[in-house]
Amino acid sequence: MKYSNPQWDDTIVALATPPGVGAIGVIRLSGPSAFGIVNALFPSKDLEQQATHTAHVGLLKENGEALDEVVVTLFKGPRSYTGEDVVEISGHGSPYVLQRILDACMRGGARLARPGEFTQRAFLHGKLDLAQAEAVADLIAANTAATQRNALHNIRGGFSAELKQLREQLISFSALIELELDFSQEDVEFADRSQLYALVTGAHERVSKLAASFQLGNVMKNGVSVAIVGKPNAGKSTLLNTLLNENRAIVSEIAGTTRDTIEEVLNIDGILFRFIDTAGIREHTADQIEQIGVEKSREKMQQADIVIYLFDVNTMKPSDLEQVQREFETAGYKYLLVGNQVDKSTGRVAPDGWHRTGGVDSSRLILISAKQGLHVEVLKERLVDLVLGGQVSGDTTIVTNARHYHALQEILRSLLDIRNGLDNHLPGDLLALDIRRCLQYVGEITGEVSNEDLLDYIFSKFCIGK
Amino acid sequence: MKYSNPQWDDTIVALATPPGVGAIGVIRLSGPSAFGIVNALFPSKDLEQQATHTAHVGLLKENGEALDEVVVTLFKGPRSYTGEDVVEISGHGSPYVLQRILDACMRGGARLARPGEFTQRAFLHGKLDLAQAEAVADLIAANTAATQRNALHNIRGGFSAELKQLREQLISFSALIELELDFSQEDVEFADRSQLYALVTGAHERVSKLAASFQLGNVMKNGVSVAIVGKPNAGKSTLLNTLLNENRAIVSEIAGTTRDTIEEVLNIDGILFRFIDTAGIREHTADQIEQIGVEKSREKMQQADIVIYLFDVNTMKPSDLEQVQREFETAGYKYLLVGNQVDKSTGRVAPDGWHRTGGVDSSRLILISAKQGLHVEVLKERLVDLVLGGQVSGDTTIVTNARHYHALQEILRSLLDIRNGLDNHLPGDLLALDIRRCLQYVGEITGEVSNEDLLDYIFSKFCIGK
Repeated sequence: MKYSNPQWDDTIVALATPPGVGAIGVIRLSGPSAFGIVNALFPSKDLEQQATHTAHVGLLKENGEALDEVVVTLFKGPRSYTGEDVVEISGHGSPYVLQRILDACMRGGARLARPGEFTQRAFLHGKLDLAQAEAVADLIAANTAATQRNALHNIRGGFSAELKQLREQLISFSALIELELDFSQEDVEFADRSQLYALVTGAHERVSKLAASFQLGNVMKNGVSVAIVGKPNAGKSTLLNTLLNENRAIVSEIAGTTRDTIEEVLNIDGILFRFIDTAGIREHTADQIEQIGVEKSREKMQQADIVIYLFDVNTMKPSDLEQVQREFETAGYKYLLVGNQVDKSTGRVAPDGWHRTGGVDSSRLILISAKQGLHVEVLKERLVDLVLGGQVSGDTTIVTNARHYHALQEILRSLLDIRNGLDNHLPGDLLALDIRRCLQYVGEITGEVSNEDLLDYIFSKFCIGK
Repeated sequence: MKYSNPQWDDTIVALATPPGVGAIGVIRLSGPSAFGIVNALFPSKDLEQQATHTAHVGLLKENGEALDEVVVTLFKGPRSYTGEDVVEISGHGSPYVLQRILDACMRGGARLARPGEFTQRAFLHGKLDLAQAEAVADLIAANTAATQRNALHNIRGGFSAELKQLREQLISFSALIELELDFSQEDVEFADRSQLYALVTGAHERVSKLAASFQLGNVMKNGVSVAIVGKPNAGKSTLLNTLLNENRAIVSEIAGTTRDTIEEVLNIDGILFRFIDTAGIREHTADQIEQIGVEKSREKMQQADIVIYLFDVNTMKPSDLEQVQREFETAGYKYLLVGNQVDKSTGRVAPDGWHRTGGVDSSRLILISAKQGLHVEVLKERLVDLVLGGQVSGDTTIVTNARHYHALQEILRSLLDIRNGLDNHLPGDLLALDIRRCLQYVGEITGEVSNEDLLDYIFSKFCIGK
């Protein structure tokens, strides 16, 4: 259900670069009058006679008054971002001057674009599907290599391609089953039920994997919160400093990146680790006087995605550590037990043999010296492993969008319904209903099935000018 | 004295758009390797084989890893902003993604540009003279129609053209006089002394006018500070609100635009009027209990470019108003006497005849109703008149740059020296010295005479990427 709307016949304009003073600023127009509107302001050359993908230097003038010396770049539709005629005006980066150019374009007949309207038009003209369009917003918000890679993978159609095969197979089976219905008097089966069964089982497996990637995708987008707990003097602030000195993340000011009262953010292998309540780690350790140092941290640990229990290998009793581990297992935490100060180890505790003295799960245990940086790299690797959980990155599609995740869940549900229907020898017309429902959810992700409200909601979250 | 420097043989790169999240961001490279560096990151097309002024869409990749989908626009030297090969990469407006592109360009051999280095290279390659280059910075900082118009006029060579004629005439006379020196034994005069005298007199007049425009230029750049003083209940805050409601200026966040403790800014006819200490007007009027309301405002008035004395026409005694005017004249203020609340006038004071009752200078007097907006337009016109002081705007060159102003003062001084020399029949060799000194200062403005330190200082005030 492609939809067309007369409002898309007009020409939109917006500042495409961030607000503020810079060397240059870019104003973008898209629509049938884009060339004409800019041409009327550009006396030195007839832009409508110029080739697409060319840049033209000249003076922008309105009613004889010079506005700016600019570079105008032309993109004739459909070979443009939106699929429409697009003009980019690159002017001097004065907010005042850019506003005057914007005003002149609007007086010339352009309308100020709504947030995301350029990308929305790209979608409506079939330049991008909805999943690709949403990845554009993800790329603009990207702040690590992992989010950048995933957004770019999806802009280029990675996620869409995964869904396309499923969709095509479901459609062909659906067509065969509907053909059966036309011949229902004759009790024939055009659609091979066992082939459909294999398809549905395979699809369920692939879609499950996609849906499972959402947890990782969410982590990539929002970061992983980590609580470091333990007795005072376990070396929490030394550990944090050692980690920070090497890997302090440059986090851009993007709305919504801060979920907690977080002070320190690390970028390890492209994943943002957010150390929650680090103020507490830095200042209030003296308050934590209980035996094993977890009592007062319970709230902090419940907020965290990962809990690091840090202890001094030279003073920790193995039985106490076992107790910590039991508590963490009971609470269902993702956790690591990190023995610190192996540099001071007196031999009583051999760094590589420490865990053998107790009944502690060795896969959870790492022994380090935060002060000397010993094995801190191992700790980082284990943190990343805990997040990725064996899920391979690279060219894998990772779902980062809650809307997609919910649609995937519905796809899984309808795939199960189809399989149950096959198991129970449901008649073709009922199977066809389930297949159509499944296709509906596939189409919702890529935008083949959509409605204006949903589209407006999705694109309203974009920035203006995109 | 053009200067060349081996350091200009390298290729520079910088983010040209303001920092922050936007739809797009532009990274600019300039230098001999600009095409090669970007080409190595752009596998889909050989950019070095493409025509100048063309735009190319493709994927930017470094070591096989995708960085962004971008538009690359090519400008082959000398047909570019800097005169060198220039490439603009327009990517998605994520600060993280743009930083990665910037890093990739630097790993490819580009060096991060210093502030203003693109414009500095444009100057060094003769694309702009120094006065034009400085106008680029003025245009980026422009925040009114007047500053925009003036900066654009000067980018396009308006100021430079004024100096060029003077320079050429001085050079030809200087050449003739120096020729005389070669024939000094023979006591000939190649240079017509009376013609030189006329030239110097004419030049002095034109340069005086340019120098005089600096006060206006300064006002255009920094705004005009206005103090509104008067008795409590004269209607100061009503007047301010009436002015603000119609003309509130949108002032961009440019460092240095706030000179005083200013709260309210108005843009009238392209000139920024800054009402200083308006907090005082709004809140502390009750403190001002003295008779005519100027005592406590003295400090405020001394800071201001213009003083408005506001009074209630229904209660003001003409003799008191005369006293205010005497005080203002003595203090040397630029001022207006504004009678308010003519709407309440009982007939005792006819709006157009009020001043006849006293010995007040009628050219300073305006009668208004701030509440009803009556004659507020006239007040605005008078404010603008007070600033422009009969200096015509339009295509007139207005000096806004302190460096230019000081050079113009030196030009004036050396022109006077030449004229004195002619009056006193100085020998040609001494005249030639003065002419050369005058030329030196002309050249300092346009950059024909310059030194690296001065250039570095001038361009260091630009933003990075310009």
